[in-house]
Amino acid sequence: MRIVVIDPNLPAVAAELEEAARAAVPGTEVSWHPRFDKEAVARDLPGAEVLVASRYTASLTPLSGSLRLLQCPAAGLDAIDTAALPAGVLVANTGHHERSVAEHVLAGVVVLRRRLREQDAALRERSEWASSTFDSSLPLVGGLDGARIGFVGFGAIGRACWAPFAALGAVGAAVTGSGSLARPDLNWPDLNWPDLEWHGRTDGADGRGGLDRLVAESDVLVLSAPLTPATTDLVDARVLGLAPADAVLVNVGRGPLVNEDALFEALAAGRLGGAVLDVWWTYPGGGAPGGSAGAARPGRADPVVGAPGRRDWGSLANVVASPHSSGITRQTLLARVADIAENLSRLEAGTPLLNAVGR
Amino acid sequence: MRIVVIDPNLPAVAAELEEAARAAVPGTEVSWHPRFDKEAVARDLPGAEVLVASRYTASLTPLSGSLRLLQCPAAGLDAIDTAALPAGVLVANTGHHERSVAEHVLAGVVVLRRRLREQDAALRERSEWASSTFDSSLPLVGGLDGARIGFVGFGAIGRACWAPFAALGAVGAAVTGSGSLARPDLNWPDLNWPDLEWHGRTDGADGRGGLDRLVAESDVLVLSAPLTPATTDLVDARVLGLAPADAVLVNVGRGPLVNEDALFEALAAGRLGGAVLDVWWTYPGGGAPGGSAGAARPGRADPVVGAPGRRDWGSLANVVASPHSSGITRQTLLARVADIAENLSRLEAGTPLLNAVGR
Repeated sequence: MRIVVIDPNLPAVAAELEEAARAAVPGTEVSWHPRFDKEAVARDLPGAEVLVASRYTASLTPLSGSLRLLQCPAAGLDAIDTAALPAGVLVANTGHHERSVAEHVLAGVVVLRRRLREQDAALRERSEWASSTFDSSLPLVGGLDGARIGFVGFGAIGRACWAPFAALGAVGAAVTGSGSLARPDLNWPDLNWPDLEWHGRTDGADGRGGLDRLVAESDVLVLSAPLTPATTDLVDARVLGLAPADAVLVNVGRGPLVNEDALFEALAAGRLGGAVLDVWWTYPGGGAPGGSAGAARPGRADPVVGAPGRRDWGSLANVVASPHSSGITRQTLLARVADIAENLSRLEAGTPLLNAVGR
Repeated sequence: MRIVVIDPNLPAVAAELEEAARAAVPGTEVSWHPRFDKEAVARDLPGAEVLVASRYTASLTPLSGSLRLLQCPAAGLDAIDTAALPAGVLVANTGHHERSVAEHVLAGVVVLRRRLREQDAALRERSEWASSTFDSSLPLVGGLDGARIGFVGFGAIGRACWAPFAALGAVGAAVTGSGSLARPDLNWPDLNWPDLEWHGRTDGADGRGGLDRLVAESDVLVLSAPLTPATTDLVDARVLGLAPADAVLVNVGRGPLVNEDALFEALAAGRLGGAVLDVWWTYPGGGAPGGSAGAARPGRADPVVGAPGRRDWGSLANVVASPHSSGITRQTLLARVADIAENLSRLEAGTPLLNAVGR
C-alpha cells in the first residue's frame, strides 16, 4: 500500500507512523510532504491508495485514480472539497487534540488573570516583587473559584476545556448552534451535563438567552465553534460591548469567529481584560483567513514569519499569543497515528472506518 | 472589641474585613499594620483583644495583657512563638488558598512544558511562528494526558493541585512524612484517594518507594510539604539527579525544601527541564530563609526589590518565577475574612473556634 502524507505536524512522529502503518498493512510505503506543494504532490499522488491530508482541491482529482481513502489527520474538514473526490473514495478524520487544547486554554487564562507574565518578568529581570502583597498600587487578582466560564461551541474541545475549570471551582455555561449539547456525528446524546449552569442556542431563539446573555455573564469566554458563514464575525463590536470590562476572551476555534478590528480596539481601550489567541486572521505564506492550519502552513525552512492579522497584536500587553499550537502535542499526534493505522487495517479488511465522514 | 491586624495581604480587603468584623461584634475597631513594625505594633497592641498576625515573638508578650485570640490570617504557623503567648490566649489559623495555588501551579507547568512563553514572545515580538509545526528544529512538546505528577506533601494544597491535573488525564502519586494521607488535624481520614496511583512515606520506610521513587518516576514534581528540620534541603543534588532530564519541579511550599545551589545547577546544566518557583530562599528586607511570607514581607512603598536567593535566577530561561503570590487572590482573602469574622463571633459567644490550633 502506498500512502501520501501532506501535513506539517505528523513529520515529528514520522517513525511512529511508518512503523504503525507497516504493522497494519505490511509493506506499506509512506511519502512525506510537510507542506501542500502542488507540483510535488502531483508527482507523488498517482498510484497512492491513501492520502493523509487536511486539504483536497479539484486540481488533485485527475491524479486520484488509485485513491481509496482520504484520511484527514485532524478534525477540521473545511479545506477538503469532498465533492471533488472521485466516487467511492472514503473520507475519515481524527482528533485527539482536545485535552492538549484544554491545558493550553487554562494556562493562558490564568497567565492573564493572575498577571503571571508581569510577575515573572519583574522578579526575574528586576528582582521586583510585583504583587498586591508587596505593592499596594497593584490590583488584587481574581482566582477561578466561582468565576464564570462561557463556552461558544461545546463539542470535544469545549467539553475538554471545561474539565479543569470545573476542577478549580468555576461555574460554566455554553451556547451551541443548535441549542443542544448532542452531537449525533459523534454518537453523543444530549447529555444532561449537570455541571453546566445552563446551555442554549447561540442565537437565543430558544429563549434561554443565547450568546448575548453568555457574554454579559462570563468572566472568561472560550470560542471553539466551527467557522461557517453564520459564525464569521459572530463576536463583533456589539457583542464585545456586552462583556464585563475585565473579561478574558479565548479563541481556539478559527480567527474570523471574531471581528479583528473590534477585538483589537476593545483590548487597546481596556474595555476587555485580555485575550488568549491561538487562531488568527492571517497565516504565514498567505494562508486562508479561515485559518485552516494544515492547509495554510507553508512548512518553509525555519523560522516561519508572518503577521497573524492586519493589526499590531504584539503591541497589546493583555494578549497571550500562540501559533495555532494549542492542540499539537506528542499525545495528540501519537493518538492520530493510531487512528490512521487503524483505518489502514480497516480499509484492507473492508470494515467500516473509524470516524468515517459522510459525503 | 479592638483588633490589631498585621498582614500584608488583608489591606486589599480592608473594607470587607471591617464590615464583617462589625457585623460579628458591633462596635469593633480595627487598626492596620501592613508590615511587622515593632514600634508601631508596640504602641497599638496594648488593650487589643484580638491580634490577626502570622508572626508573634516574645517581645510582644508584655504588650499582650488584653489579648484573648491570636488569629493567624494564613495557614503557616512557623513564625508564631506560641510558647511566648500569655496563658489563655487562643490560637486559630485559616487557609482557603489551595485552589488559587492550584491554578497557578497548573498554569506554570503548562507554560514551561508547552513553551508558551517562548511562543508568545516570538509571535508578538517578531511575528515568528515558533512551534514544531512551523519549525522542524523545535521540539514536539508534551501534553499532560498520561504525564506523571508526583506530590511531595498531600495536604490541602497538594489535593487541590491534583484536581486539574487529574481532569486533564495525568497520573498522580504522592509521598507524605507519615506515609498516610490522613490529616487528623483537619479531621480528614486516610482516604483511599483512588485516583492516585500510589502513595507512601517520604523516607521510603514503608517499602513503597518514597521520595526517590517519586522523583525518578515523575514528569512534574510538586512540593507543598511543610518546612521542618527534616524537610530542609529535602530535594538536594542527589535527589535531583534521580529526576528525568525533562522533569519540571514546582515549589509552592517553602524555598529551603530545595537546596538552592543544587537546583540552580541542575537547571543551568539542562539536567532538569524547568522549575515553577513561587517560594524562595531569601525575601525582601532580609526576610527569614524559611520564607514565612507574612513575616518576611516588608510592606515598603512600591516597588519592593530584593533578590530571591543567592543565585542569579533571572538568568535561567527555564524558570517561571512569582513573588509568593500563588495563593493570594480575592477569593482567598474574602474566605479568610469570613473565617476571621466567624471567630470573633465565637470568641464573644465562648464557643469553640474555627480552625483552633492546639498549643
